[in-house]
Amino acid sequence: MAACIFCKIIKGDIPSFKLFESDKVFAFLDIQPLSRGHALVIPKFHGEKLTDIPDDHLSEILPVAKKIAQATGAGDFNILQNNGRIAHQVVDHVHFHMIPKPNETEGLGVGWPTQPTDMDKLKALYEEVKAKM
Amino acid sequence: MAACIFCKIIKGDIPSFKLFESDKVFAFLDIQPLSRGHALVIPKFHGEKLTDIPDDHLSEILPVAKKIAQATGAGDFNILQNNGRIAHQVVDHVHFHMIPKPNETEGLGVGWPTQPTDMDKLKALYEEVKAKM
Repeated sequence: MAACIFCKIIKGDIPSFKLFESDKVFAFLDIQPLSRGHALVIPKFHGEKLTDIPDDHLSEILPVAKKIAQATGAGDFNILQNNGRIAHQVVDHVHFHMIPKPNETEGLGVGWPTQPTDMDKLKALYEEVKAKM
Repeated sequence: MAACIFCKIIKGDIPSFKLFESDKVFAFLDIQPLSRGHALVIPKFHGEKLTDIPDDHLSEILPVAKKIAQATGAGDFNILQNNGRIAHQVVDHVHFHMIPKPNETEGLGVGWPTQPTDMDKLKALYEEVKAKM
């Protein structure tokens, strides 16, 4: 994907603070961090959304995110992967944020608009989703 | 972990809308959803934070989250895993949320307090973290 900024970073055409690289995964510091240690872990396979990435390109992502969390010394942190503009995705190459949460103001802000529990609706949804699994 | 609600769900002592189960991973609908299709994917291995889970118990998590996203038909969605109270973790057993984002009001709310880019600070941080990888 010639126009993709993350593909360019993987190729080395754009420099990065590279923390990890294997045959399938690449990780680097976010240069517009939400907190100290904010890093990105990405599959080398180009895909816009999680659903576009083959399973074998996903299996190493979380172990690498974990390794970076440990290396930054982040005690509290969020792992976040956004799919779609409305879900706050900005770059159209799947990326996992590891965002340390050192205090209330820095790091990820989480809004949690819980819906009322409706067991009948959940049961109907469950049957529908389960049938497609 | 006798007191852990997610360990009880895995054992079947508490019922759940189970979407997937393998030897290492369990997934079910969240009964306090942020949007229709909100589901949880968890390692069976009990650990509070991502850094407590062995790598081989993490590799199947994202493929399962992907499978559920596809089954719910969510076009836009967030994958989120919180570590620590301040990072919005409520249950102390690692869990990954798959939260469909159908519109602005439903689903995850994302706050993004970007810090100014400071290349000197980033370089110093990079050297420090890289040495620990």
